[in-house]
Order: sequence, then C-alpha cells, then structure tokens
Amino acid sequence: MRDFSQDHRWLSLNTATVRRQGDLAAIVEACARHGIRAIDPWRDQVAAIGLDRAGRAIRDAGLELSGYCRGGMFVSDAAHRSDALDDNRRAVDEAKALGAPCIVLVAGGLPQYSRPGSAPSKDIAQARAQIDDAIAGMLDYARQAGLPLAIEPLHPAYAADRACVNTTKQALDICDRLDPARSGMLGVALDVYHIWWDPELMPQIARAGKDRLLAFHVCDWLVPTKDILNDRGMMGDGVIDIRSVRAAVEAQGFAGYSEIEIFSDDWWGKPIDEVLRTCIERHRTVV
Amino acid sequence: MRDFSQDHRWLSLNTATVRRQGDLAAIVEACARHGIRAIDPWRDQVAAIGLDRAGRAIRDAGLELSGYCRGGMFVSDAAHRSDALDDNRRAVDEAKALGAPCIVLVAGGLPQYSRPGSAPSKDIAQARAQIDDAIAGMLDYARQAGLPLAIEPLHPAYAADRACVNTTKQALDICDRLDPARSGMLGVALDVYHIWWDPELMPQIARAGKDRLLAFHVCDWLVPTKDILNDRGMMGDGVIDIRSVRAAVEAQGFAGYSEIEIFSDDWWGKPIDEVLRTCIERHRTVV
Repeated sequence: MRDFSQDHRWLSLNTATVRRQGDLAAIVEACARHGIRAIDPWRDQVAAIGLDRAGRAIRDAGLELSGYCRGGMFVSDAAHRSDALDDNRRAVDEAKALGAPCIVLVAGGLPQYSRPGSAPSKDIAQARAQIDDAIAGMLDYARQAGLPLAIEPLHPAYAADRACVNTTKQALDICDRLDPARSGMLGVALDVYHIWWDPELMPQIARAGKDRLLAFHVCDWLVPTKDILNDRGMMGDGVIDIRSVRAAVEAQGFAGYSEIEIFSDDWWGKPIDEVLRTCIERHRTVV
Repeated sequence: MRDFSQDHRWLSLNTATVRRQGDLAAIVEACARHGIRAIDPWRDQVAAIGLDRAGRAIRDAGLELSGYCRGGMFVSDAAHRSDALDDNRRAVDEAKALGAPCIVLVAGGLPQYSRPGSAPSKDIAQARAQIDDAIAGMLDYARQAGLPLAIEPLHPAYAADRACVNTTKQALDICDRLDPARSGMLGVALDVYHIWWDPELMPQIARAGKDRLLAFHVCDWLVPTKDILNDRGMMGDGVIDIRSVRAAVEAQGFAGYSEIEIFSDDWWGKPIDEVLRTCIERHRTVV
C-alpha cells in the first residue's frame, strides 16, 4: 500500500468539492497553488467557462485529470431516449478533448428523476435493464474514442433519484455482461461513501481486479447525516475505515489518484484555501 | 396473492406509526375503533404503561400481535456486553408475556451508536461478527421460550448507527449459519423501505421461503427524503412498488399480517384517526 503520509502527489480534487467557491478557472488556480496535481471536473463547471478555456486552464496549470464527471442518467421514457444518448456522446467528446482517463457514469434512477419530464415509473428492474442497454450503446461510441467508462455504484439511498446501480457487485455484473473480454474500456469508479457498508465489498474489489478499477473516490459518512445528498464528510470526520478500502483497491494493483469528492453544504461554506489545506492534511493522515 | 381491496383484515399497525399521538392504551383503543386486528408494539411504549397493563389492554381489545419491536443492538464494547445480553433476554420475556409471534431484531451498527458509551470503532466487519455471536446466544434463550427471532435487514443508510445487517442476503446468511435446520426459530422481518432497492431482492425472498419469512412491513420511500430516519412515506406516496414485493413474499407462502410502520414527523403531526383511516385506505388500494 502506498505511503501517503509524506506528500500529496496522489491526491486528486473532484471539483464539485469546491463548486460554490469559484468557477473552474479559480479552482484550477487554487489547485496549482496547493501543489495538487490532478482534478476531476464536472461538465457543468466546464460548460460554465467553455470547453476550450477549461482545457487551456488545465493544461497551463500542468494538471492531470483523474476522470470526468459525469455521463449517465440513462433511464428515461421513450421520448427522452435520444436526448440521453446525444448527451452521453457529448460527454465522451468533451472528456476526450480534455484528456480525461475515463468518464464516471452515474446510471440514473427511475425515469422521472433520471430524465425529468419522463413518464413516472416504479419499475426499478426495468430501469436497470435500460441501463444495461444504454451503457452497451455508449460503450461502442466510447471505444472508438478510446475513452474508458467507469460505472459508479451509488449508495442505495440514491436508488430512486440518481442511480439504481447500487452495489459493486451489480456494477461488475454489468461490466462482465458488456465487456467479458475485460478490454479495459469498462470498469468501475468506487467511492467509499457509496460502498463502505457493503458486506460483499472486499470480495467484489478482488473480483474487479486492476483492469476494472478505473477510479477511487474518498470522503466520509457522518453520523448523523443531516442531508442525504449534501452532508458528506471530510475524510476522518465520519465512520468509514477509508484506509482499509484503499488497501484493498491497491492490493489489486490500483495505482491511480485518490480523488476527494465531498458534497457538503458545510464545506461549500468555507474558503477554498481552507478546504484544500484540510483535504491535503487528511489525505496524508487518514486516507 | 391475497386480495386486500375488500377489507383490512390483514393490516397490522406497528405502534411507532402513531407514537406521538398517544400512549399504547390509546393506540390500542384507536385500533379497536377502526377494526384493526393486530399491532406490533415497541418496548418503550409497553414500558411506559407497564407490561401487565399493556397485555391486558391488548387482550381486552381482542388484538393479535404481528411482532414485538425490538431486540438487538448487539454491538458493543466488552464492558457493555452483558447489558446487551440481559436487555435482549428481557425482550424475549416481554414478548412471551404479550403473546408475540416473534421478536424483530435490529442488529446494531458500530458499538458507539449501538450501545452508547461503548468505545468507538470503525470496524464494521468486527461489528458483524459480534452480531452473529450475539444472535447465536439469544437464539438459545429464545428457543427455550418458543419465541422466534426475526432479523430485520436495515437500509444501508443505517449501517453505522442502527444496523449493519443491510441486505436480505446478509440476514439469510446469518439464519443459515445459526439455524441450518430451518427450525422456524430464526428468520427475517422484511420491510419494503429497507430492501426495495436491492437488485437481489427477488431471488433472496425465494431463498428465504415460508419458514424464514416471519414478518412483512410496509411504508414508502419518498423523493426527496428530507430526514434519513423520520421522513418515511405513507404507502402510495413514494416510489416503492409495494405490491410486487408482497406478491413475492406471498408466493413463498407468507400469509401473515402486512404491518404498517411509518416513522414520519409529518404523520406524527396528524390526528390518530386520520392516520389510521389513511392506513386502511392505502392498505386496500396500494399494498
């Protein structure tokens, strides 16, 4: 297991962590100032300053990407299906232009939440079947671009409104169905927040293996959690044994960035330099 | 699948659903008034009016029990272990005195939340091992009393603070380890709120079979969920396809009560008769 205590060379910042403190250009600048070597930007943050300018800012600052957030939201009614497809193709094009190593996929929940305006449904099995089909389609396009897709299982608390891919096993089952050859083009993005509770986590990480482990995200689970979406914790402030999950991932050969992604009204309210200083300190001490 | 549309003979009320509207005696009276035939009382509500008086009120009203809530909270440090054991034996004695068909077990999460005052830990695997041991011990005692134990898998959102038994598979694995003969003394209590998201739900219900299906609870998952504990929905107000889960349970031969358990600041704020009328109407139309 890599020693993170001496420096933060393997820290990547998911830019949602400081999305209220400034635009992507300001975030890139702050990362450079703190010696952070990589980011994972969100599409809305890229769009807000324009793809060209975002790419330039990232390159000028010498930053790498650890991913691109996000593709997905595959579940919809028939009327919204081609929108979802086009949207995901654009995500591939953008990720390619920015030099991202993968696109993180948040699969979508029930159609009325995944693609608003879709006819409502309670059929989660059908939603899951749609996700398989849609990832298969997107994978064809992504292969041509040489852009790997990383399915992120989301905590079951988000099954209705964000993603009904809710366990590492489920995500890997999709990978096995759609990419049995383990081509490297389809894998998972594992965020400790979503998976720490799973009794099957450790064997599933072993099953994933290096070629399916495309991204590793950290934050913490707070008790109590005051808001189901926006009360995620800074690493060390919650109950997740983060290091044991990182050890398991690295035991499979994962050698990429440890990406910090914290959705938190609390941390969004603090100055960006304080947030980044804290991220670096916790990366060295508890990740 | 049973037809619930004509009457509510298979409706049981978990008394937590109206716990702020009155004491257990008042709840029993209200159930009798609405032709509700069964309840599942909570220990604190029983204790508040006394075990003898509670038993008398339930018998006088001609009510059956569909369970007794709750045993468990098995995880603790060494100093709190005998307290936890004693507490669970008392739960068995009380359930026996009240004539409950089973005790619902909420397993406990990390020790600092399961048994406050315990030394804090982030070791969820160790917590789970403790749960196995503690249920094995409690099962010996419960067998002598002829009182079945129903392990309730809780939604993964409660893994830290309430129960780190989080899937039906995990609960059934415990049952298979501790009661391989399927004696009828150990099974599961399935609440749609906790399990609806699970991609393995249907095969696990089939695996459970009639002799492991000891209780069936209903409410609904609201979007958005404003509070992780106390914003559960009235059946029909959320996204759960309740009827498909009931169909699966009944296909295994489950023929017991459909127990309504709603933790909700919203519903706790309404008059008891309005809540019970709504429960009955939804039981007939959406359960």
